[in-house]
Amino acid sequence: MSSGTSVGSGTSAGNGTSSGPAGIERLSLNQITTRGWTLAEAVRGCAEAGIGGIGLWRDKVAEAGGPVAAAKLVQDAGLAVSSLCRGGFFTSPGAVQDNRRAVEEAAALGTDTLVLVCGGLPEGSRDLVGAREQVRDVLGELAPFAGEHGVRLAVEPLHPMFCADRAVVSTLGQALDLAGQFPLEQVGVVVDSYHVWWDPDLYRQIARAGARIAAYQVCDWTLPLPADALLGRGHVGDGVIDFPPLSRAVAAAGYTGWIEVELFNQEVWDTPGELTLRRMIERHLAHVAMP
Amino acid sequence: MSSGTSVGSGTSAGNGTSSGPAGIERLSLNQITTRGWTLAEAVRGCAEAGIGGIGLWRDKVAEAGGPVAAAKLVQDAGLAVSSLCRGGFFTSPGAVQDNRRAVEEAAALGTDTLVLVCGGLPEGSRDLVGAREQVRDVLGELAPFAGEHGVRLAVEPLHPMFCADRAVVSTLGQALDLAGQFPLEQVGVVVDSYHVWWDPDLYRQIARAGARIAAYQVCDWTLPLPADALLGRGHVGDGVIDFPPLSRAVAAAGYTGWIEVELFNQEVWDTPGELTLRRMIERHLAHVAMP
Repeated sequence: MSSGTSVGSGTSAGNGTSSGPAGIERLSLNQITTRGWTLAEAVRGCAEAGIGGIGLWRDKVAEAGGPVAAAKLVQDAGLAVSSLCRGGFFTSPGAVQDNRRAVEEAAALGTDTLVLVCGGLPEGSRDLVGAREQVRDVLGELAPFAGEHGVRLAVEPLHPMFCADRAVVSTLGQALDLAGQFPLEQVGVVVDSYHVWWDPDLYRQIARAGARIAAYQVCDWTLPLPADALLGRGHVGDGVIDFPPLSRAVAAAGYTGWIEVELFNQEVWDTPGELTLRRMIERHLAHVAMP
Repeated sequence: MSSGTSVGSGTSAGNGTSSGPAGIERLSLNQITTRGWTLAEAVRGCAEAGIGGIGLWRDKVAEAGGPVAAAKLVQDAGLAVSSLCRGGFFTSPGAVQDNRRAVEEAAALGTDTLVLVCGGLPEGSRDLVGAREQVRDVLGELAPFAGEHGVRLAVEPLHPMFCADRAVVSTLGQALDLAGQFPLEQVGVVVDSYHVWWDPDLYRQIARAGARIAAYQVCDWTLPLPADALLGRGHVGDGVIDFPPLSRAVAAAGYTGWIEVELFNQEVWDTPGELTLRRMIERHLAHVAMP
């Protein structure tokens, strides 16, 4: 049932129950990728495709009857929960209370990884420095609580195009500066190819990250950008990101956890889930899987 | 006639012929902001509004009969050319030849600043490291040629959302690493608020930049992003960028050159040029002008 890098236990992704092709032992479906599916449908889809991990979203977990019911669904199918999306939005009112709930949900779901989208500038504010301090302060309030629940807060640097409205944490280096202020088992970082691929300092920061890497998420940067900038993420291999060196760097940093495919893309969402999973597997084997 | 930081002569922006309100001595109109205007119209508009500088675009200069005719238009109105936009696209075939022409045009126009949009990934390539090396190599070929013509190549880091298709130079720090390999008078950097405002390392890099700053361009980051990501730039004050500290930092680094307003925005382009210039002046005085 362990997930992510499993800092506490040292175990890695892949639970041996997978019946999929060799090479997808660490592949996980982030649930947003098959947005049209309920949790039950996504779990069945993964089990049938031989995908052993699933990253859950809080709204989908709630729809499925809450974390206890959702955990049972996932476990009964022999899957593991790779992460819970998402906590964060620390610059909004009520953030601490909402994130405590998210931590409890993650623990109930049996994942040690809560992905954080840290929040943008507060409404009407231009104080970027202040917003970044606020993120650190709220993280400080939450970290011990998360640790007590066996959950690691995974700070996700988002592409700088989302700095104003979604996450003032914009680079892996900045996320590591933040995470480094807290114990390793309480706060980690997410490496999401879409958000970090452009960074001239990326490889140095991945090496620096080491055991702080709590999650590795993949999708591709495709051109042109769509009208809704949120929805421009393509299947691995459809865009400009060079996945083999990126995946090697994440592995060299010591990360042995799940590799989640997280696609925000209307065309993918309009595709039957089974086809999406088949493509995910093909692309994982061609671009991401390690020998 | 000097412009930019005027490394050679040490003179600063503002030529004393301006009849505009106090506080706009360093304000310059980047010609793209009044895209519907010919060069003659833009020059007349600036002169009437008391704006003393104008940043030119090569296509508009060509339309006006070439650099010699354009220079005469500008000089006859008592204006200075703050920069020429743009060279670059170093990852495309024929880049060296085209950029030599751009250097000659800049010299003929009487500006010491050629703004470079360095180019994205070559068609079909995922080799970001290679593209960045190519930018450095082409810069190395051009730098001495630019120096001989009294023109400084101004490397503009573009927002990371343009990394794939427009500029693999994505941060001010990266631009400085690049510029630092060449003599100060041959290669500088552009600080454009829109492209760099999100960078957690921005203020440190501006201080580091010092005399490398060849141009300071301003426009605001507005929400939501428009369907065409290129066109999301708003008037100063319409978005989330905090201009007073940014402008103070650029000044503290020693930059005394022109402050260009460069707006890519369909709504602005649909507005009569006179109104746009009036708004530019109001916003410059309210958010950018130094005491």
